[in-house]
Amino acid sequence: MSGNHFAAWMEGVQHRTETALGTILPEASIAPQRLHEAMRYAALGGGKRVRPLLVHAAGEIAGADPERLDCVACAVELIHAYSLVHDDLPCMDDDVLRRGKPTVHVEYDEATALLVGDALQALAFQTIAEGRVNDDPAVQLQMVTLLGRASGSRGMAGGQAIDLGAVGKQLTREELEFMHIHKTGALIRASVLLGAQCGAPLAPDAQARLDRYGKLVGLLFQVVDDILDAQADTATLGKTAGKDADQNKPTYVTLLGLYEARTLADVLLAEARDAIASFGATAARLDELANFIVHRRF
Amino acid sequence: MSGNHFAAWMEGVQHRTETALGTILPEASIAPQRLHEAMRYAALGGGKRVRPLLVHAAGEIAGADPERLDCVACAVELIHAYSLVHDDLPCMDDDVLRRGKPTVHVEYDEATALLVGDALQALAFQTIAEGRVNDDPAVQLQMVTLLGRASGSRGMAGGQAIDLGAVGKQLTREELEFMHIHKTGALIRASVLLGAQCGAPLAPDAQARLDRYGKLVGLLFQVVDDILDAQADTATLGKTAGKDADQNKPTYVTLLGLYEARTLADVLLAEARDAIASFGATAARLDELANFIVHRRF
Repeated sequence: MSGNHFAAWMEGVQHRTETALGTILPEASIAPQRLHEAMRYAALGGGKRVRPLLVHAAGEIAGADPERLDCVACAVELIHAYSLVHDDLPCMDDDVLRRGKPTVHVEYDEATALLVGDALQALAFQTIAEGRVNDDPAVQLQMVTLLGRASGSRGMAGGQAIDLGAVGKQLTREELEFMHIHKTGALIRASVLLGAQCGAPLAPDAQARLDRYGKLVGLLFQVVDDILDAQADTATLGKTAGKDADQNKPTYVTLLGLYEARTLADVLLAEARDAIASFGATAARLDELANFIVHRRF
Repeated sequence: MSGNHFAAWMEGVQHRTETALGTILPEASIAPQRLHEAMRYAALGGGKRVRPLLVHAAGEIAGADPERLDCVACAVELIHAYSLVHDDLPCMDDDVLRRGKPTVHVEYDEATALLVGDALQALAFQTIAEGRVNDDPAVQLQMVTLLGRASGSRGMAGGQAIDLGAVGKQLTREELEFMHIHKTGALIRASVLLGAQCGAPLAPDAQARLDRYGKLVGLLFQVVDDILDAQADTATLGKTAGKDADQNKPTYVTLLGLYEARTLADVLLAEARDAIASFGATAARLDELANFIVHRRF
């Protein structure tokens, strides 16, 4: 499949995710208006939509219906959006810029940003429980549970807590990996599994290979993020660049150096592609996505 | 049923809720340890457990299994606990005392308190999706959806946002009611419905009467809260007293005066008891609970 086809597919998924999110998020005209306006500000109009792309790409392996994938993609993206709003708050990363726009607490206020995050999380769970994402409600319950685990203290929120505790510390590579497997990895991995769960059930070994892909791509994403953060300027990145190193946070670049970090990215990419090779043509999008994640410039 | 029996039943539910929460919350020895310790600090060892009491009392109407009720009670209480942690943060009510102990951000730090709330919310949804709360997974999905709606921007979080916008304003009684129906009412109402949904399906008119009870008790709870807040001292209340009036927040007492607020509580109590009268003996606990909510001293 050519690069152009992939670019068009990617734009298509980004567009339909934007449309679906716009429908799921309450209109700004509905009370409480300011909260709803701020929720839309936080979740609409930007972002690479990496997690929705993974949901849709994984769905192709299981022949899943695109509308079901939209629903799951929105649930995952709402969790991601909430985590960014809370992560940007003054008591966390204290960031003023996100996707080239003022962060939610800057554009609105801190209390509103707190509630925006809280309400986006609730909406994520409502969305995946309410929509028709699987014919079997028992499987759908497992999907809700998976999203809960990936988001909570032993997933994403736990990763943030480990990150907090790591500021100013020298971490080993194992500790850094443990942090990222939780902080960004858990939700990326869940995106891949949830996308596949929208379709026909996979055999346990196929499920395991897909999970391995998800885990590797989650790490890959973070390694590349660290490389970009070390190199890019703020305008290209759409968020404050060089921030992690400034804040004395351990990154793959500070730990391994730029050259070794790039080598690690290459190795992870090869392993991720290898994990899904046996799926053949149905895994084409997952393969292209892993490649895209390494070669993105923002 | 005598008052003593009710007190023993109440203590029993409070005790089993504490035990069930202790099992559901990850041990403080599991990484990330500090986050897990803070989550346990926030959710264990205190509180009246009004929502679990409502879950169990409503469950008696539908002959629900107590273990299922424990699971739902924990999910609702985890949502409640997260909302308290976030509500106490400096950018919200900036409170230092809760249930007679330092609030989470005072005992730990603000960033940890933020993550504690986020992780407790995720755990709530995981709990209600993962546990066996109904034989029919399709009904269970409806229960997850109901919890999501009650917690989100058109429920509890929305009520908090309306509250933020109301500081220093003169509200009409209708506006005050609209705020409380969301802020505390939505989760209390959901507790009643979710408790009943753990058991045999109710006829639509029985469901409607129970929902009316839940709505009235939610309001009743807030009116009595405002009366207690206006009267009590900090030691009795276990949280900072007189705070709402100090912060120029509208309350039923500032709006109606103490005498009229008490009259309103009496009227709401009579209406709530009336709504469930036709359930007969199975509604005894709900009846006693409404009574308890009015006559509590803390």
